[in-house]
Amino acid sequence: MPNKTTSLDIKIKTPSKNYTINFCTENNFENLCNTIISQINNRNCLFVTDENVFAKTDFFKNVEIQNKNIIVLPAGEKNKTWENIEKILDACFLHNLDRSSCLIAVGGGVIGDMTGFASSIFMRGIPFIQVPTTLLSMVDSSVGGKTGIDTPHGKNLIGAFHQPEAVFCCKYFLSTLECIEIQNGLSEMIKHGILGNKTHFEHLENLLKNNTTIFKNTKITEVIDGEDTKLLEEIFTLVPESIAVKKHIIQQDETEKFGGMRGFLNLGHTYGHAIELLSNFKVPHGIGVAKGIICALKTSQERNIFENNNYNANRIKNIFEYANIDTSHNFSETEIEKAMTHDKKKKDGEIQLILIKKIGEVTYNYL
Amino acid sequence: MPNKTTSLDIKIKTPSKNYTINFCTENNFENLCNTIISQINNRNCLFVTDENVFAKTDFFKNVEIQNKNIIVLPAGEKNKTWENIEKILDACFLHNLDRSSCLIAVGGGVIGDMTGFASSIFMRGIPFIQVPTTLLSMVDSSVGGKTGIDTPHGKNLIGAFHQPEAVFCCKYFLSTLECIEIQNGLSEMIKHGILGNKTHFEHLENLLKNNTTIFKNTKITEVIDGEDTKLLEEIFTLVPESIAVKKHIIQQDETEKFGGMRGFLNLGHTYGHAIELLSNFKVPHGIGVAKGIICALKTSQERNIFENNNYNANRIKNIFEYANIDTSHNFSETEIEKAMTHDKKKKDGEIQLILIKKIGEVTYNYL
Repeated sequence: MPNKTTSLDIKIKTPSKNYTINFCTENNFENLCNTIISQINNRNCLFVTDENVFAKTDFFKNVEIQNKNIIVLPAGEKNKTWENIEKILDACFLHNLDRSSCLIAVGGGVIGDMTGFASSIFMRGIPFIQVPTTLLSMVDSSVGGKTGIDTPHGKNLIGAFHQPEAVFCCKYFLSTLECIEIQNGLSEMIKHGILGNKTHFEHLENLLKNNTTIFKNTKITEVIDGEDTKLLEEIFTLVPESIAVKKHIIQQDETEKFGGMRGFLNLGHTYGHAIELLSNFKVPHGIGVAKGIICALKTSQERNIFENNNYNANRIKNIFEYANIDTSHNFSETEIEKAMTHDKKKKDGEIQLILIKKIGEVTYNYL
Repeated sequence: MPNKTTSLDIKIKTPSKNYTINFCTENNFENLCNTIISQINNRNCLFVTDENVFAKTDFFKNVEIQNKNIIVLPAGEKNKTWENIEKILDACFLHNLDRSSCLIAVGGGVIGDMTGFASSIFMRGIPFIQVPTTLLSMVDSSVGGKTGIDTPHGKNLIGAFHQPEAVFCCKYFLSTLECIEIQNGLSEMIKHGILGNKTHFEHLENLLKNNTTIFKNTKITEVIDGEDTKLLEEIFTLVPESIAVKKHIIQQDETEKFGGMRGFLNLGHTYGHAIELLSNFKVPHGIGVAKGIICALKTSQERNIFENNNYNANRIKNIFEYANIDTSHNFSETEIEKAMTHDKKKKDGEIQLILIKKIGEVTYNYL
C-alpha cells in the first residue's frame, strides 16, 4: 500500500486505535481507489457519500468502486441527522454487513461524522475508513475519532468517539471544491497554527499573503483551478503540518477530558458554533470558526490574556483577510451567550472558552 | 461507601474502565439509596426506570431519590427502541445534563441496555450507573458494558460497548419479582455454570432440586414470597459466583472479538434469539436462552462434541425442570435457521454456535 502514498504519511496512536493518514499527491484517483480497495481487502463494505461528491467527482466511476455497495445521501449540514444515520444502518442491513465488515466515508465532515457514528453503533461498532473530500475534513474532522449528528439543541450533541482504521487524503479532491470550501479549510488550518504551532501559522501567512489576489478575484462558489492550481498544491503540502498539531493533542487526550489538551482544538468553536446556530447554519463551519477566533482574540485582549502586542493581534486579523474570509458578524453578545448555553463545552453550567495567549499558545478560560 | 455493601463486592477490570459490583444484602433499600446518592456525589443526573419498577418498588419513594430528575419509560422488550432512546436524550437536554453528569438505570435489561446506550452517545459519552432490579440483569446485562436497542432486523443490532461506572445489586428487588423473572435469571446463571464453572452449576443444581416444589406450586405471574423468601436469599448468595464467570471472560475479551472468549457467553443465545424472534417476543429472554441451551446440547450430542455421557446431558435437562422452566418449542429447524440469519453472531455469512463439551466447558462451532 505505501507505494502509492507518500513519505508524508502520519501515524496516529491513541489508546483505542492506531492508524495512518495516507497522502496521495497525484492528480487522479486511480491510485487512491486501488489503495482503498487494497485496504478493504475483500471485506463486505458500504461506501457512504453525498449527492455532490457523487456528481462532481469521478471517484465512483472507478470500476472497482462501482462494484461495491454505495449509499448516496443528501448534502449539507442540515442533513446531519438521526434520519440519515438510520438510512446508513438500513443499508448496512440490506447489504448484509456484519461485525467483520467496514464502512467508507467519501465526503466532507458531515458524511465523515455520520459514517463514523453509524459504524460506531452498528452491531456495537465496526471499523470505518475516512476519505475526506474537503480541505476542512482533511485537516480536521477525518482525524481524531469525533463522530456524531446535530440535534435541535445544538451541533454534535449526540455521537461517539470512534477512531477510523485509516484516512486517505488525496490532493485531487481540492480541485473539485468551491472557493468557500477552501476558505473553510484554511480557517481550521490557521486555527491549528494559532493554538499550537507558530511556524505553521507563518507558512500559511506567507502563502496566503502571496495569493490574496486569487481569493479576492474568485467568487466563493467558483472552483480555484487553471493557472491557480499551484495554490492548491501549496495548500496541500501544508496539510500534514496542520494535522500534526491535531495529532500531538489527540494522542495525549483522546476523549476531551475536562481541562485536557483536546479542548484547545475548540479555539473559536464555542463562539463559532453559536454564530453558526444563530445564522441558522447559513454561516459554514470553517467561516464560523474564523469569526469565533476573532471573538476569542477580542476577549483575550480585553482580559489581558493576549500578549501586549498589537502587531501580532493584527497578524491574526490579517491572515483571514488575505484569504478573503469575512470575520465580522451582526449578533449581539447576549444573543451569542444564549446560543452558547446548549454547547457541550461547558461543565457544571460554566461555559468554557479557549483564549489566545500568543500565536502558537492558547489557554482555558470561562465566559 | 463500602460500609453498606458487603465483602462479596466484585472488582471488574477492562481496558476501557474499572468498576465495582456492589452487593446489598439488606431487606430494604434505604442503604442502597444512600450509597447511590453518595456515588452520584452531587453530579447533575437522570434516573431512568420503567412503569413497573416505578409502581412496584419503593425505590423512588426515597426522599433523596425523589428530588432527582427521573424519566419513567414503558416496560417490556418491545419498547427497547430508538424512540425511547430519544426520550432519554430529550430528558438529558431538558434537565441540562452535560459531560460531567451521569445517568442511573433502575430496572431490568431493557432499561439498563437503553440507559447505557443513551449515556454512550449523549455528548459522545457520559458515565452511567446500573441498579439492576431483576435477577437476569443482576447476573448478566448490568455487567460487561453491552448496551443497545432492538431493530426490526433483530435484537441488540444497534448499540455500543460502554461500561458502567458502578453496579449495585440489592437483594430486596428479588422479592418484587414474578416467578417467571426469577426463572429468567436462573437460566442465565445455569448458562454461566455450564460454560465456565462446574461448581456453580452444582450449587444451582442442589439449590433447585431442593426447592422444585416451590417452582411447581408458584404461578409464573406470582411473586415468590412469604416462607419461600429463604429460596430468594439462597439464590442471591449465588449471584456473585455467577457474575464471577462473566467477569473472568469480559476481562480477557471486552468487545467480543471474533473467536475470543466473550462469544462463549452467547451459549444458547443464537438459538434462543431465533426462538424469541419467532415467538414474536412472547418467549422472554431467559426462557429463550434455556430453550437455546437445550438446542445447543442436542447439536453438541449429534456432533459428538458433548462428552459421551448421558448422565451429564440429563443433568442439564433436569436442572431446568427443577426450576419448572419449559425448554421445549414448536419451531422447525428451517424456521430457526432462517431467523438466525440476521443474528449478529456470524462472520462472513457463517452462523456461529457455542456448543457444549461438558458441564463447565464450551467450544465454538458453526451451523
